Amino acid sequence: MSSSPLLTELIEALRCLPGVGAKSAQRMALHLLERDREGGRRLSAKLADAVDRIGNCARCRNFSEAALCALCRNPQRDAELLCLVETPMDQLAVEQATGFRGYYFVMHGRLSPLDGLGPAELGLEQLREGEATAHYVAQMAREAGVRATRLAHGVPLGGELEFVDRGTLAHAFGSRRDV
Amino acid sequence: MSSSPLLTELIEALRCLPGVGAKSAQRMALHLLERDREGGRRLSAKLADAVDRIGNCARCRNFSEAALCALCRNPQRDAELLCLVETPMDQLAVEQATGFRGYYFVMHGRLSPLDGLGPAELGLEQLREGEATAHYVAQMAREAGVRATRLAHGVPLGGELEFVDRGTLAHAFGSRRDV
Repeated sequence: MSSSPLLTELIEALRCLPGVGAKSAQRMALHLLERDREGGRRLSAKLADAVDRIGNCARCRNFSEAALCALCRNPQRDAELLCLVETPMDQLAVEQATGFRGYYFVMHGRLSPLDGLGPAELGLEQLREGEATAHYVAQMAREAGVRATRLAHGVPLGGELEFVDRGTLAHAFGSRRDV
Repeated sequence: MSSSPLLTELIEALRCLPGVGAKSAQRMALHLLERDREGGRRLSAKLADAVDRIGNCARCRNFSEAALCALCRNPQRDAELLCLVETPMDQLAVEQATGFRGYYFVMHGRLSPLDGLGPAELGLEQLREGEATAHYVAQMAREAGVRATRLAHGVPLGGELEFVDRGTLAHAFGSRRDV
């Protein structure tokens, strides 16, 4: 049994975090109680704020507490460039890793009717998975006279071939270039 | 830049959790916003409750929101047995892995004057680290006519209880010996 029902409930509640099992949840709860109550209080406040106030940007559909997100409201971005990504996680990754300074559009998934993700949910008229999605978007772009590009597929820099999945490797091999 | 200042603040706040770096914090924040706002709301509430209301049990010094913790108030426990542990994490590990049904006393550390942990902070008159602590406690017990035992080896020397698997801990607990 536990010395504190409230501690048990906190440990249970922490398990809603992805990748956090019983042991990690215990360690997190005890760490906060023993060494960082201020951090716990701040996390509690930010969490309540975020889940209650963050919705989606009316233009790019990314997370935003304002009707238009901070990025879409920024006039310094290059309005000639639009980067389509599947998820907000992808948007963060591209923004942090590349020099891209255009705008984004977040599809929030690929077409997956079984999961309730139909064309309407993606914000595009009609889409199919992965390759097909890119192909369809490129076609839409061409018809509108807009140039569309996609990420190069390839082996990660400094990566070991054995850890690269077959699809990526096949792509990288198929588009190998002169040295 | 981020589409949502509030999201950026949530990601920052999540890093107070042990073992959570920038990438994990991002994944956690986005997971809650996309798939489990109810879980996030519950976590926020439990966290605020816990950091504000949990103090220490007046008898065993373990975490408790009541003056006496749930375990010390339980008359079903065996009052002949007392298990001394360093931390609340150790108490949880022993309680979950072994059949121990006595009471506990949580020292909240070992004597470590540099970290501000003097004899008074441990709740015992005078203690030295590790082996010496056990030896000293055994001596105190003998003088009071009480039998003292300690965990059998099987637990790695210098290891943390929280990283020992349940089976090993159960064995070590089952064959604990007189000091």
